[in-house]
Amino acid sequence: MPRYKLTIEYDGGPFVGWQRQANGPSVQGAIEEAAAALTGSAVAAHGAGRTDAGVHALGQVAHIDLERDWPEDTVRDALNHHLRPAPIAILSAQTVDDGFHARFSATRRHYRYRIVNRRSPLTLARGQAWLVARPLDAAAMAAGARHLIGHHDFTTFRSSECQAASPLKTLDALTVSRDGETVTIETSARSFLHNQVRSIAGTLKRVGEGAWQPDDVRHALNARDRTACGPVAPPDGLYLTRVDYG
Amino acid sequence: MPRYKLTIEYDGGPFVGWQRQANGPSVQGAIEEAAAALTGSAVAAHGAGRTDAGVHALGQVAHIDLERDWPEDTVRDALNHHLRPAPIAILSAQTVDDGFHARFSATRRHYRYRIVNRRSPLTLARGQAWLVARPLDAAAMAAGARHLIGHHDFTTFRSSECQAASPLKTLDALTVSRDGETVTIETSARSFLHNQVRSIAGTLKRVGEGAWQPDDVRHALNARDRTACGPVAPPDGLYLTRVDYG
Repeated sequence: MPRYKLTIEYDGGPFVGWQRQANGPSVQGAIEEAAAALTGSAVAAHGAGRTDAGVHALGQVAHIDLERDWPEDTVRDALNHHLRPAPIAILSAQTVDDGFHARFSATRRHYRYRIVNRRSPLTLARGQAWLVARPLDAAAMAAGARHLIGHHDFTTFRSSECQAASPLKTLDALTVSRDGETVTIETSARSFLHNQVRSIAGTLKRVGEGAWQPDDVRHALNARDRTACGPVAPPDGLYLTRVDYG
Repeated sequence: MPRYKLTIEYDGGPFVGWQRQANGPSVQGAIEEAAAALTGSAVAAHGAGRTDAGVHALGQVAHIDLERDWPEDTVRDALNHHLRPAPIAILSAQTVDDGFHARFSATRRHYRYRIVNRRSPLTLARGQAWLVARPLDAAAMAAGARHLIGHHDFTTFRSSECQAASPLKTLDALTVSRDGETVTIETSARSFLHNQVRSIAGTLKRVGEGAWQPDDVRHALNARDRTACGPVAPPDGLYLTRVDYG
């Protein structure tokens, strides 16, 4: 059975998240149904990252096995046709060998968190950013962020529902930058704990507002205590931007 | 009566356009109703540009006269409060003297047209860009655009419903650039004819696809004939980005 690597963009707003669940429409479910409509038989989609409800993707990756050897562009276009009108787009479909696994072969995941820092409400970016009214000091946020880069016990920044065996993770990058009213957090790691990026974003926002000093981020990390974390940032601002392989 | 200059952002999707009309909700009407809710009496909002149905704004300008001298931030915040949940945001309210008129004092208007050039459907940018599947040559579009810069008779690029007394306009700038899959057209002029930017965008898309040569834009301009125009681009991709004064 030929295996296809799918690169996927979606607006997470209408979904319960990537993963198929009983309580509402999922991105995984929509793609599996589109693939079944194309092939006439059940198809499982394996995703690289299980994004939560409301979280977006610019470059989620999944793989599917099809019974027939379809041209790559046909798979992409047919899936997009069957996905309509869901806000999910297959950006590309590439044949890969059987050893490729979207989740287990991934070597790095990249996330972006987008804050719009202004008093006025969101219009075009509604549901696509976190609106923070109080002025944020992006340089202070960047200084706080530096304490989190590297190999650490991220218990503080981990959801109580997180199923990972270990709270030890290595953040390869974590930057904060401002462009006009937009404050962008970018981060990369082999893998992340559940709610890790949103927990970090909420904590850095606290630093940006001046409620915390940059050094307080280090204290929070060292506490290894969920209650030392800032508020978890809303899903609206979070984007899975890219997944690296090989 | 103190006069306030309002700078306004909106998602044009749900509106019949800037201008108050009988057939549906307008941006002007929403702002006038919010101002009336604040002040308790009827308020007229005068806009710099009458954007069409579905056209967005990042920096529309309007002025309103209020009976009382409210602090600027109070006017902004109160209007935003009363505008909810419409996707309209007052970015700023500034007191201006009686000689200021949002429409007649404007010295330059800036528009952006955003094309997403790819085969896959739009997700997060749905309603906020024109999706063009065929590959576009942005350099050819830019070459075609150069024929339109300056003082010309724009009859070819004017809606049959245009009410302007003269088809003569001066385009101060018209550029085309590509960043990844996004092709952006930026243009500036003291004022524009009805549908002028969308007519130009539709014509330049024809050049980008290779159906027209850049020189054909000059021939179309010189024809001074509406039927020589390319198809009018959809409103989704058009943004009134800024209005200059004084």
